[in-house]
Amino acid sequence: MGKRNGQLRLGAFIYYSGHHAAGWRHPQSGVEDLFRFDMYKKLAQTAERGKFDMMFFADLLYAVNVEKAASGMLDPQTLLAALSAVTEKLGLTATVSTTYNEPYNVARKFATLDHISGGRSAWNIVTSQLDIEAHNYGKPKHPDHSLRYEMANEFVDLTKQLWNSWEDDALVLDRKKGQFADESKVKEIDFQGHYYASKGRLNVPRPPQGYPVLVVAGSSEPGIDSAGRYGEVVFTAQQSIESAKVFYQRIHAKLEEYGRSHDSLKIMPGISPIIGATEEEAWKKHQTLQDLISPEDAVQAVSQFINYDLSKYPYDQPLPDNLYHLADQSNGMKSRVQLLLDTAYKENLSILELGRKMLGARGHIQFVGTPDQLADLMEQWFDEYACDGFNIMPPVIPGDLDDFVDDVIPVLQKRGLFRKEYTGNTLREHLGLERPNVSYIQKDKLSSH
Amino acid sequence: MGKRNGQLRLGAFIYYSGHHAAGWRHPQSGVEDLFRFDMYKKLAQTAERGKFDMMFFADLLYAVNVEKAASGMLDPQTLLAALSAVTEKLGLTATVSTTYNEPYNVARKFATLDHISGGRSAWNIVTSQLDIEAHNYGKPKHPDHSLRYEMANEFVDLTKQLWNSWEDDALVLDRKKGQFADESKVKEIDFQGHYYASKGRLNVPRPPQGYPVLVVAGSSEPGIDSAGRYGEVVFTAQQSIESAKVFYQRIHAKLEEYGRSHDSLKIMPGISPIIGATEEEAWKKHQTLQDLISPEDAVQAVSQFINYDLSKYPYDQPLPDNLYHLADQSNGMKSRVQLLLDTAYKENLSILELGRKMLGARGHIQFVGTPDQLADLMEQWFDEYACDGFNIMPPVIPGDLDDFVDDVIPVLQKRGLFRKEYTGNTLREHLGLERPNVSYIQKDKLSSH
Repeated sequence: MGKRNGQLRLGAFIYYSGHHAAGWRHPQSGVEDLFRFDMYKKLAQTAERGKFDMMFFADLLYAVNVEKAASGMLDPQTLLAALSAVTEKLGLTATVSTTYNEPYNVARKFATLDHISGGRSAWNIVTSQLDIEAHNYGKPKHPDHSLRYEMANEFVDLTKQLWNSWEDDALVLDRKKGQFADESKVKEIDFQGHYYASKGRLNVPRPPQGYPVLVVAGSSEPGIDSAGRYGEVVFTAQQSIESAKVFYQRIHAKLEEYGRSHDSLKIMPGISPIIGATEEEAWKKHQTLQDLISPEDAVQAVSQFINYDLSKYPYDQPLPDNLYHLADQSNGMKSRVQLLLDTAYKENLSILELGRKMLGARGHIQFVGTPDQLADLMEQWFDEYACDGFNIMPPVIPGDLDDFVDDVIPVLQKRGLFRKEYTGNTLREHLGLERPNVSYIQKDKLSSH
Repeated sequence: MGKRNGQLRLGAFIYYSGHHAAGWRHPQSGVEDLFRFDMYKKLAQTAERGKFDMMFFADLLYAVNVEKAASGMLDPQTLLAALSAVTEKLGLTATVSTTYNEPYNVARKFATLDHISGGRSAWNIVTSQLDIEAHNYGKPKHPDHSLRYEMANEFVDLTKQLWNSWEDDALVLDRKKGQFADESKVKEIDFQGHYYASKGRLNVPRPPQGYPVLVVAGSSEPGIDSAGRYGEVVFTAQQSIESAKVFYQRIHAKLEEYGRSHDSLKIMPGISPIIGATEEEAWKKHQTLQDLISPEDAVQAVSQFINYDLSKYPYDQPLPDNLYHLADQSNGMKSRVQLLLDTAYKENLSILELGRKMLGARGHIQFVGTPDQLADLMEQWFDEYACDGFNIMPPVIPGDLDDFVDDVIPVLQKRGLFRKEYTGNTLREHLGLERPNVSYIQKDKLSSH
């Protein structure tokens, strides 16, 4: 395949004190600042210095294992709102669960974030994973996987109607006539779904981007379907270029199925880079991090992830045979469990090795090597249509984001794979995504469901 | 009564394009910037320049009358999060409705705002007012007044338990041992109420202020009860110093009933000042604003507020007799409706005059005069224990906040009634409120309900 046109899309994905489970224990982690604004401000400004498309925050609605893990997570929407005030161009992607929020509130908060950031917001749409999250919200049980996706699809349909309830030019602001808005351009929606309803209009005018960039995180069948329906960025865990290419094709086939153009969606797998000036240095850093994961934590992590107690098995031996039924039973992240089991069996890993590997990059690519090697990998994946860019997952924050910006971005820029300056202002412009057209949507789809 | 010790507490209350209903039509209004961050940034920095205790945002969950009124309101929590990044000392008070939110989300967002602002958050607890708000959330009807307050009390109890689920010193951050937090200091709550439930713990450590300053807005009987139970600031509409003194006494009697100290709560009525270098100039500005309210809007506003159609009555004549039953029927703001009717009958106002008066300051004090006269009023109210401070409601933004800061604050400072510099960092410190003690609360009240 010839050299592909265009450039990479890059997200700076911030997660606890870094993506590596023991990253917080690294001497250079900023764990002391995990709940302080200044570290996030520095991270966002570093990402902007590196011309990242966006900063990306995950969201988990629980705190377990507070003794051993860097637990506790600031609310991403709130944090990104604050970061919007200290950045100019950087996209701001907040994960928000459809399972434990009201559509009107979500629509309004993203509309607000989009307004105050001048069109830089994105919503990573997730459905949450665990019963302990349900418990925090006073529910006995987390809804089943397929039900959650059904609910999410309806939730997104509703929020889109709310964002579209004001036409772009609805504001009149005529002081003399005393006309604030053109009533005929502010529609009442009347959405009566199976799970959500809303009759009225948003109390915030249509945001600069029309609506936030919609990010879909799932890689399971319903996740791929959601990507095809409305996803504009797909965040995915892919361990190999082969699987990534298959995934890329599946998503694009789904886009066609829904009559959408191939330009209307970008696929960005996660990659957690451990970089060194030499390979040796990188592997040494990797080993340092892996050694910080105790056998107990490794076993517990795998057990918890696959929902099967492995503590009775010797941790230096491989997994018991044939646990694939656990993926089907999983009410959390089906596709991720399956991927983990594939890796374990194929590489014949001990439970400890599997746990450490899993905790290292949580199912995403764990890259270890030099900046040039990383650029090679990224270039190959991009050129061969395995992805449109990456969500960069620094194993230890804040330092590893600095390293990526200082050491890897210049290589990508030199190869013509990444922008040297922002050319647009909104996240849609950075990503090359069209602004949705409200008139079209209103006429065809707004009033009925 | 002798001169009272202490100083005024001041909030800068921002509402649409100003508190005056037609304020947005004033040539100096910033209505073009109503959905842009820069105006709010300037307002917040102006308030901080004036050493205000806090900036205060209302919240209404609907947009009606978009044709005639400055409709549309950015989400206050999101906006204040952004403002936290461009201010250093200013308190940040977000109105959030208990009726249309999840306790876990509210607790978490305020915990986040408190962390990232270094302890400057406050929550103005409201229950919302109208059926049209319910409709936006897919509900047929807004819950009744007394039910809403019952729900709100439970909601607040639950969020307090969540904020208290982490003890202040729960974080250990021992890299060597691999201990992130002390599990024994992160309690599982188990709250099973009539309306809300939660079993688990917050996923954000205890905020700098313990929890946000709790602001109670109601002046009705259930509102006064809530103030006594947990209010730390009471925002109230009082038309006269006499009624304000009675209200002050009632609140303090209620505090005693609940065994709380008189220092644990501050009463801050709203006041909307129209200031001029001379009285004449001020009254001229007042007239300019009042004339911008059309008779149609005035009649509609009164009708909507009391939920009774007045359009069949001549607008230059007084209200029909004896409409007091409407206050009891009101599912919105009982005490405000009663106050409005009192004013109308006592001053024998025409419907137009009443509507214009109401829309001017919405039941709060409409001050018109010079900075010295305003300082006199504020000093008298403060000295005579009619209040502990004021929520300043600029009729037109942004200019009227500048005028207050430039012309009134220096007078108050000169009289020793207001700080010249911030002496603390957190909003609790500004307001002279104690930081809540978690150990005490946990031992006595955390595990049962």
